[in-house]
Amino acid sequence: MRRKEFEVQEDELCASFLEEKYDGVLTFTGKDGWPKAVPLNYVFLAGSIYFHGSKQGEKMAGLAADPRAEFVVYQAHAFIPSYFSDPYLACPATVFFRSVRARGNVEQVTDAAEKAAALQALMNIMQPEGRHAPIDAADPKYAASLKGVSVMRLDPTELTGKFKFGQNLSDKRRDQVIARLNERGLPDDHDAITRIRDSALKCPMRDN
Amino acid sequence: MRRKEFEVQEDELCASFLEEKYDGVLTFTGKDGWPKAVPLNYVFLAGSIYFHGSKQGEKMAGLAADPRAEFVVYQAHAFIPSYFSDPYLACPATVFFRSVRARGNVEQVTDAAEKAAALQALMNIMQPEGRHAPIDAADPKYAASLKGVSVMRLDPTELTGKFKFGQNLSDKRRDQVIARLNERGLPDDHDAITRIRDSALKCPMRDN
Repeated sequence: MRRKEFEVQEDELCASFLEEKYDGVLTFTGKDGWPKAVPLNYVFLAGSIYFHGSKQGEKMAGLAADPRAEFVVYQAHAFIPSYFSDPYLACPATVFFRSVRARGNVEQVTDAAEKAAALQALMNIMQPEGRHAPIDAADPKYAASLKGVSVMRLDPTELTGKFKFGQNLSDKRRDQVIARLNERGLPDDHDAITRIRDSALKCPMRDN
Repeated sequence: MRRKEFEVQEDELCASFLEEKYDGVLTFTGKDGWPKAVPLNYVFLAGSIYFHGSKQGEKMAGLAADPRAEFVVYQAHAFIPSYFSDPYLACPATVFFRSVRARGNVEQVTDAAEKAAALQALMNIMQPEGRHAPIDAADPKYAASLKGVSVMRLDPTELTGKFKFGQNLSDKRRDQVIARLNERGLPDDHDAITRIRDSALKCPMRDN
């Protein structure tokens, strides 16, 4: 359900979520006019979202014809079963999650140094232990690969975050959910409890 | 990179992946002409993909004006660091994953019994332990909620799977990756090894 109270206005929160993650879905209009959804690894670097891929294919063809795109990153944090707050109805079952949608045009990166910097930044997040030669446009061992790969950049003109952690719950229901998460104790539940408490402080709205 | 050899033609494989999972990204064209990407929970039931949500909002408005959509589900199985197969270059770093894209028109479900069946199926997968009254259009306690919620159905006219588990690797490189995954022993690595072996049997193509 689209709930205004879950929307996050602060760009810093959206940016720090985009910096944490490295996969999402790129959405654009195909050459056939249909919307397309392609899962991709990405890196968020200096305010831009970078992807890489083949120089051929529907993504390149679609974006060349119409560069408008939206990229979305999503993380489910905790499934909240209905019986955490209601013994009868299934309706309260929900997922606490974070998502950020970034809208903007996608451009081809042609500068070899920018390509190398984006790919190195992607490696830094996906393979933080290193153990490879730095990706450097001046390294002849990388030159052909850098030429062969396509790197794209989305400069967001709009970032929309949706961080849902029970901000709409009454204090009583929220405490109940926290107590149940404490009992359940799945690996992510402790982190979810922290996020629920933070969200309640930041956004003390409620509707039930 | 778009690699034909990772594409899965068998609809059963795509369908069983869609049955396993319950979140993905719905892509459609907004009223403003921009592509939109919305993360959603879903259930795959009798060949259809069902979502639910608010009766208002951009999703409803966009899909009412243009019902063409693509829905994508993605699961990362194992990050394969570059040094599993190359001591110098970063290029071999990759992710083994499964994804399925389903293309079709999205329709509003108006029949209360079909709505109830879809939502019950979603509960079956998200909350398999039950502990709620069955969602039933004839139960007066559910009637108002069922009326208030929007349930949408996407009947796929095309399913495209991409299951990448090193099918492009030579036998030697594949064995090397399997040995390294065995050593690394992350929680998903054993499952990934099984999928690598299965994929090599089904699709013995290679290009390096």
